[in-house]
Amino acid sequence: MESEKKSDLRPFFEPGSVAVFGSLREEWGEGYMVIRNMLHFGFTGNIYPVNPSYSEVLGIKAYPTVNEVKGPIDLAMVITPPPTVPAIIEQCAQKGIKAVIVGTEGFAEAGEAGARLQQQLVDMAHSNGVRLIGPNTIGIVNTSNGLVTNPYPVDYDRIWKGNIAYASQTGFVGAQGQPLEDRAYPISKMCDFGNKCDINEADLLDYLLGDAETKAIALHMEGVKGGRRFMDTLRKVAARKPVLIFKVGRTEQGARASASHTGSLVGSAQVYDAVFKQAGAIQVRTWQEFWEIPKVFASQPLPRGNRLAIVTPTGGAGVVAVDAAVEAGLAIAQLSDATVDRLVRFHANLSGNPVDLGPSMVLTEDPLSVLEGTISAVLDDANVDCVTIVLAAGMERWASATVNMFDRLRQHISKPITIWTYGTTVSMTEEVARQLEAMGLPTYRELETAIKALGIAVHYAKVRGALQGTTSSNSSRG
Amino acid sequence: MESEKKSDLRPFFEPGSVAVFGSLREEWGEGYMVIRNMLHFGFTGNIYPVNPSYSEVLGIKAYPTVNEVKGPIDLAMVITPPPTVPAIIEQCAQKGIKAVIVGTEGFAEAGEAGARLQQQLVDMAHSNGVRLIGPNTIGIVNTSNGLVTNPYPVDYDRIWKGNIAYASQTGFVGAQGQPLEDRAYPISKMCDFGNKCDINEADLLDYLLGDAETKAIALHMEGVKGGRRFMDTLRKVAARKPVLIFKVGRTEQGARASASHTGSLVGSAQVYDAVFKQAGAIQVRTWQEFWEIPKVFASQPLPRGNRLAIVTPTGGAGVVAVDAAVEAGLAIAQLSDATVDRLVRFHANLSGNPVDLGPSMVLTEDPLSVLEGTISAVLDDANVDCVTIVLAAGMERWASATVNMFDRLRQHISKPITIWTYGTTVSMTEEVARQLEAMGLPTYRELETAIKALGIAVHYAKVRGALQGTTSSNSSRG
Repeated sequence: MESEKKSDLRPFFEPGSVAVFGSLREEWGEGYMVIRNMLHFGFTGNIYPVNPSYSEVLGIKAYPTVNEVKGPIDLAMVITPPPTVPAIIEQCAQKGIKAVIVGTEGFAEAGEAGARLQQQLVDMAHSNGVRLIGPNTIGIVNTSNGLVTNPYPVDYDRIWKGNIAYASQTGFVGAQGQPLEDRAYPISKMCDFGNKCDINEADLLDYLLGDAETKAIALHMEGVKGGRRFMDTLRKVAARKPVLIFKVGRTEQGARASASHTGSLVGSAQVYDAVFKQAGAIQVRTWQEFWEIPKVFASQPLPRGNRLAIVTPTGGAGVVAVDAAVEAGLAIAQLSDATVDRLVRFHANLSGNPVDLGPSMVLTEDPLSVLEGTISAVLDDANVDCVTIVLAAGMERWASATVNMFDRLRQHISKPITIWTYGTTVSMTEEVARQLEAMGLPTYRELETAIKALGIAVHYAKVRGALQGTTSSNSSRG
Repeated sequence: MESEKKSDLRPFFEPGSVAVFGSLREEWGEGYMVIRNMLHFGFTGNIYPVNPSYSEVLGIKAYPTVNEVKGPIDLAMVITPPPTVPAIIEQCAQKGIKAVIVGTEGFAEAGEAGARLQQQLVDMAHSNGVRLIGPNTIGIVNTSNGLVTNPYPVDYDRIWKGNIAYASQTGFVGAQGQPLEDRAYPISKMCDFGNKCDINEADLLDYLLGDAETKAIALHMEGVKGGRRFMDTLRKVAARKPVLIFKVGRTEQGARASASHTGSLVGSAQVYDAVFKQAGAIQVRTWQEFWEIPKVFASQPLPRGNRLAIVTPTGGAGVVAVDAAVEAGLAIAQLSDATVDRLVRFHANLSGNPVDLGPSMVLTEDPLSVLEGTISAVLDDANVDCVTIVLAAGMERWASATVNMFDRLRQHISKPITIWTYGTTVSMTEEVARQLEAMGLPTYRELETAIKALGIAVHYAKVRGALQGTTSSNSSRG
């Protein structure tokens, strides 16, 4: 059953033209919504609605069948009732379409009859040289060409363009469910595998390895298919780009829930832990970590060691940060004498790490210059590999000055930093975070996550070194 | 050194009158700020500013010394330079003030000289029958009488009145640092122990046990003082009210950071884990959990068992929820046949738990009635002890209808529920969460926290049963 040959996902992510099969009922039909969303996202290719009941939708000519379309078509998005899907795949094959996303629900996740129908899709596709994503999926996002196949009404049309690829087995990652814009996730590609009847993570990893727009990869997985190939691919990709995995269905009960969600077969948590570790992937443990941790890889250099400096306006947060750091495998940096000399000019107490600015902040009328000088000093310290900054960001009167300060600072930042924004109002805290993210400074909503992100970056730097060592000695033997 | 006698903290939390020692410089002085904040918070008692350089501040008569005040004074808040504090404590004792909060920094947390000065405070207080909170603290909040001793400019004056007491060893818990209003934490009392030279958690627990306004207690602790008495008190209180502890300085490095923050001596994490468990306290592990988990106790009944139902509009979140539930010690409820009969009327697929509403929601024009019917059905099921609801809350057009639906539902809720709000915009998600919190429905920003809160409620219900068993058999022997 399992295809061992390497697939090329370019038709899925970079199609010149897309056929859309589904209801075109205005503001309601799923085909209509896909097309509306593609137009909003600014898709740069041709769109061909296919539906015999319409001659036009959203100003675009519709076709009764895909055969009537004159030009070539690279990708089809299909969201029609389950029994109609096998014949549509056959139509697509006849038209020369090699890539089909089946959005439709009601296959393996819905019971035995659905599983049989899903097998028909697979057989139809394989015998015609067609590759499938899905079924039961919202499909693809590509921020560089405006491709989106999401059939939900997505009320805003800006996703932040960046260099993290997110893949999942749930459409819940889509812009209809997540605050992608508000949280400023820097996205290159997204892929919902749904029931994952054909294309799987190994195919995607292969594609993303060669994708210049993707620096880091985050996978939400319910089950693994094609274990050996997945492992080999994972190992190959992890040597070049960090791969973070949020494995769900870890518990027996979670696995059962997964079976009724995407029809996945899942293994024991212990097996996956061992397998992922061996392949150089890094596991994250919560939904929030899945979204937030990869940001540290989007714009920051890899740390050269694990020595962390913490700059905080409050000693209380400093203690929390130190615990989190040690638990994340980081060491608390011993600041050099030269750094301490620089810090005590601000305040006699500023000699330790965490650098607790509290006492100095209340004595100065220019706390931001103390903060800027402190961050510069610790970044310049050869004993420091990475820095987490606890940033008071809840007060409107300081917000723009704070953002400007980081704009100056980042000009000479050559070590990875993470920022935790906190404050009295959520709206200001989030606004400052967005502005820092826009500068490529990874900014977190939880202190522990900001610290853990650096711990994971340190861990990945080691893993990559080890894997690249292995890879080069392998090739020298080859 | 250690006072073994039970203290009465009423003068600290329920003073009829408060003397404030500190700079009265307008909009800058810490004494000024304390008084300004008390006026904003609507403190109902008398305020006596004490400062020889002023005759009046904010319309209130100031006194050169506390002896000039005619009436009795219950509490003094002192924020003057460190060397002046011992003499002020002596003055307070002469005036008959038995309760003093020392806000001033620069004692044991600042090194040996500070530690000696702190010892002077303690000696002065003990020899005069005065009890101290602090030094190095923002002191007390009591939402029922408007008492606040926070010397930071607190830009808003509403803290949600509720029935959770939060205590800490950092002023970072204060309204100058946390979004107390935005996040709708239902607060009865707050107490920052600072360096904890005299009054400690055992005193506070004793007081809160008898405080009708407090249903649950959350303690942020760097170190424990008076181990035996703390343990006994903890055990006594935990038999009546849940005590959640966020122990920081868990790691050796964290403990060192704590020493320079509040001068605390801390023990090993393993010792604390064992001690807290034995005493019936429940540990939380992150800054967010410290704030969020206690909410489940504020308004919800204790669960009668560990069988959880999950209602979700997305199967993907359902799988994440199930893993989190099992890891939190919950069981996934087996819905009764009667419940399944009710659910399949909405959609043939609604027979499992998690109840995945996804397929039914897209087929109905009235998704909220399906959601309301589903929540009612699982709450009515005798096989269900508690419910977590994954709530799409990011769209403005549904927000008020969603809140109204919960307003109807909560009339007949007799089992604990938690809600996770998610959505496309942070602002709407937070707004819906605040409105649900206002109704007493604990609403979370992370799915895993919403689930863990119920797991902890189940755990506490067992602990309390065991402790009450012990307590009553002890008394029957007594």
